[in-house]
Amino acid sequence: MVSHRPDPCVLVVLGATGDLARKKLFPALARLAARGLLPAGFTVAAVARRPWTQESFRQEVVRAVQEAGGTEGNDIRWQHLLTRITYLQTDIRDPQGYARLRSLLAELEERGRTGGNSAFYLALAPEFFGPVVRNLRQHGLASGNGPGWRRVVIEKPFGWDLESARQLNRELVEVFPERDIYRIDHYLGKEMIQNIMVIRFANAFFEPVWNSRWIDHVQISSLETGGIENRGGYYERAGALRDMLQNHMLQLVSMIAMEPPTSLATADIREEKVKVLRSLQLLTEENIRKNAVRGQYGEGFFPEGKVPGYRQEKAVAPHSATETFVALKLHIDNFRWAGVPFYLRTGKRLARRYTEIAVQFKALPQVLYFKEYGELSPNLLVIRIQPQEGVFLRLNAKRPGTDNFIVPIKLDFCQNCEIGVNSPEAYERLLLDVMRGDPTLFTGWEEVEYAWRFVDPLAAAWARAVPSFPNYPAGTWGPEDAGWLMRRDGRQWAEAGYGPEPPAASPAAEA
Amino acid sequence: MVSHRPDPCVLVVLGATGDLARKKLFPALARLAARGLLPAGFTVAAVARRPWTQESFRQEVVRAVQEAGGTEGNDIRWQHLLTRITYLQTDIRDPQGYARLRSLLAELEERGRTGGNSAFYLALAPEFFGPVVRNLRQHGLASGNGPGWRRVVIEKPFGWDLESARQLNRELVEVFPERDIYRIDHYLGKEMIQNIMVIRFANAFFEPVWNSRWIDHVQISSLETGGIENRGGYYERAGALRDMLQNHMLQLVSMIAMEPPTSLATADIREEKVKVLRSLQLLTEENIRKNAVRGQYGEGFFPEGKVPGYRQEKAVAPHSATETFVALKLHIDNFRWAGVPFYLRTGKRLARRYTEIAVQFKALPQVLYFKEYGELSPNLLVIRIQPQEGVFLRLNAKRPGTDNFIVPIKLDFCQNCEIGVNSPEAYERLLLDVMRGDPTLFTGWEEVEYAWRFVDPLAAAWARAVPSFPNYPAGTWGPEDAGWLMRRDGRQWAEAGYGPEPPAASPAAEA
Repeated sequence: MVSHRPDPCVLVVLGATGDLARKKLFPALARLAARGLLPAGFTVAAVARRPWTQESFRQEVVRAVQEAGGTEGNDIRWQHLLTRITYLQTDIRDPQGYARLRSLLAELEERGRTGGNSAFYLALAPEFFGPVVRNLRQHGLASGNGPGWRRVVIEKPFGWDLESARQLNRELVEVFPERDIYRIDHYLGKEMIQNIMVIRFANAFFEPVWNSRWIDHVQISSLETGGIENRGGYYERAGALRDMLQNHMLQLVSMIAMEPPTSLATADIREEKVKVLRSLQLLTEENIRKNAVRGQYGEGFFPEGKVPGYRQEKAVAPHSATETFVALKLHIDNFRWAGVPFYLRTGKRLARRYTEIAVQFKALPQVLYFKEYGELSPNLLVIRIQPQEGVFLRLNAKRPGTDNFIVPIKLDFCQNCEIGVNSPEAYERLLLDVMRGDPTLFTGWEEVEYAWRFVDPLAAAWARAVPSFPNYPAGTWGPEDAGWLMRRDGRQWAEAGYGPEPPAASPAAEA
Repeated sequence: MVSHRPDPCVLVVLGATGDLARKKLFPALARLAARGLLPAGFTVAAVARRPWTQESFRQEVVRAVQEAGGTEGNDIRWQHLLTRITYLQTDIRDPQGYARLRSLLAELEERGRTGGNSAFYLALAPEFFGPVVRNLRQHGLASGNGPGWRRVVIEKPFGWDLESARQLNRELVEVFPERDIYRIDHYLGKEMIQNIMVIRFANAFFEPVWNSRWIDHVQISSLETGGIENRGGYYERAGALRDMLQNHMLQLVSMIAMEPPTSLATADIREEKVKVLRSLQLLTEENIRKNAVRGQYGEGFFPEGKVPGYRQEKAVAPHSATETFVALKLHIDNFRWAGVPFYLRTGKRLARRYTEIAVQFKALPQVLYFKEYGELSPNLLVIRIQPQEGVFLRLNAKRPGTDNFIVPIKLDFCQNCEIGVNSPEAYERLLLDVMRGDPTLFTGWEEVEYAWRFVDPLAAAWARAVPSFPNYPAGTWGPEDAGWLMRRDGRQWAEAGYGPEPPAASPAAEA
């Protein structure tokens, strides 16, 4: 959809002194302010428990923005926004606080002429979502109370399984209808993920080959070198399956695999994404045994030095069975994708950090150049999501020279390779979209529901059997079995085949 | 075909002091020598009329090689080759000379143990081809005389029309069978033209979209900024139609349009190229009026200064009706290409110098992004032949930023952009292929024949009507009508659409 300007509104950040607010939300707001993208009359109500004064809280925010890299723009505008951030000290469990929030909102609305538009960003642990929205309703702050729109923004994890997600959703929709709930999957705000649909549907080139007749397989890797930092408590319950695969990875699958939607309206796009999730071949016991691999890192080495194993991290149980790595082969049972495997892998403390989607095309018929040269590299379309943002197509061409050698070449487009090109952070785009009322890059309830329906059997099967962890050293490519998942099909993961930096055509002609 | 080493042989250059020998053949031999690619025992017999001594001729060759840019390699090897060049002074019209050539060859064969292998390069005006080969036969130097192979290499023009080409061919095949005749079209030796077949048939990506269902049109431009230099006498008879279109341009059409051959053997490839030429829709009178444009440059301006018009060039008639520009829309009447126009244009003294093939894909269905943004740039595959050598694919993508703007991006591969990568000159490859006995990159008789059959009606129609020349100033994009040929079909030539250097995605996000 062509984007319009965001509406004037108040943004209420609940949990304003927490990690998310400090590391992501305020820095994103500062950059939006500096580029003049925030609506007129925009104000922020920052709600938290700590005893800050207005002045000390603002100083805290300034520090957080600096730590996140500054505004990269006009700091006068940002200074102006700073004066429009009001700190409200209260415990979100205290009903009295909501009365004070209500008065503050009335005041800010008057000041900014925001017409009653308010977005409530729950930068909180998920167990508070239900109680908080009930309190909002009781104090007349939910959807339908007064003029203007009311929207609620929540972060993953959205439940721990299908049942808990449904429970959480029931609590939310009692207060905010689905159209006012913005479930953030920050992956969807990344530039190249927004680009997947454009690449597929704004080009005539791909649709004819985008199906099981021409595509051999799709592989999606989201690899991190980092560990769990100080999030041991959260991660112990989540693991890589719930932290990455249920949301980010399945979102990528649905965007790569979806049918062209009827229109670019959110509902039409979500409908097609849900259809993909509904078409995922269910994971039976046998399926899981054959096609799913879990791992947990032990201590290991990076060029920077030795790092501890997962079980040695803070707030992790000494015999923890939580997985820090998942690899999975799945199938989509529909006309377009029947027989085309999708291989996913994600994990922490791996050899390299990158997220990319590689679409590998089928091998050529074994005639002509094949007969003369043997196996040729298959064609690949690679969408690079981070840290590099770009697209490349790997083709075969003749090596320059007086002989007929065929080598792979790369038709390349890199979005963020040029100096001075900085893609906006995902949170900038997503915060603007909340104010614009465009939920396209957020996750609809049905998507959450079908993703859990797919993941639940796998989580349950893994909970029943004790894994022999750790099974990969930090700094490697993950457990052996993940490689085997590919090799037994005669395929290989990208890093073994062409690496995140595939070779350009050898420039050397013959000596 | 996987290339093998060239056979030991003697290369006989007839016309060894002419422009072609000096500018192309000896420089190519010097570079091949410097890179160690020539066969053991290789020697050259250089035949011409001028009264040089061995020493003075060799000095002349050294100067020619230097003027052409040197050997870019090991000059000791090149010095060694120089000692193996023998000059034979004789008039090629003098039968006595052939007896002396025969003795010289016997001597060189003995010296180089070349087993009787000889290649005769006729670097001569075409009227000498017939007499020279007859003399070769009379002196026992043609195919079938003695051990080893005998091959003859000739340059365009191969006839002036179908009839004269047939006559010339009859004279040749009396002496050398078709398999021993190497008709050079030096375009076919260019790196990226050799790459066309590899790109098409060594990649799974293109075949599915390489047909009338997905391709809107193909345009082939071979544009020169230069004039006719001192070739007025030749050019007055040839014109752009015979100099460029009948050979180079139709060869490009046949390589872009051909079906996959049964194998990479020369005969199989030629068969498919001939099938394309046979399928060209014949040019009727009406067709020619509508779809063919000729032009001749008048005086005009380049950044370097004013240049004279064609009629003011040396050895050109003051009211010459010779065309220096041709544009043509043609159709290939077969299953793959029915309804897909091929637009060709070539000319001298144009605004830019480049040769490229652009395959434009059909527009998208007018839904989704089209509805929101209006017309999107169509996808393009561009094969750049000179001066840049490379391939790029133009796609649409999202412009980085918090808004949804769609911009064209370029997936690019440039073969000769990196410093230090020098593709070999066409003549290096082609001379080696003569010694290897690989005629794939040479033009077969049937190709010549069907190309003339296509071109003859156009030449005849143009000969019947006096054009109003000059009709384009030097330094422009050619006559107005050439643009109209495209515009009336709702299309445009590359330079108007995206230029030889199409824009990369605008790196600027919103201000």
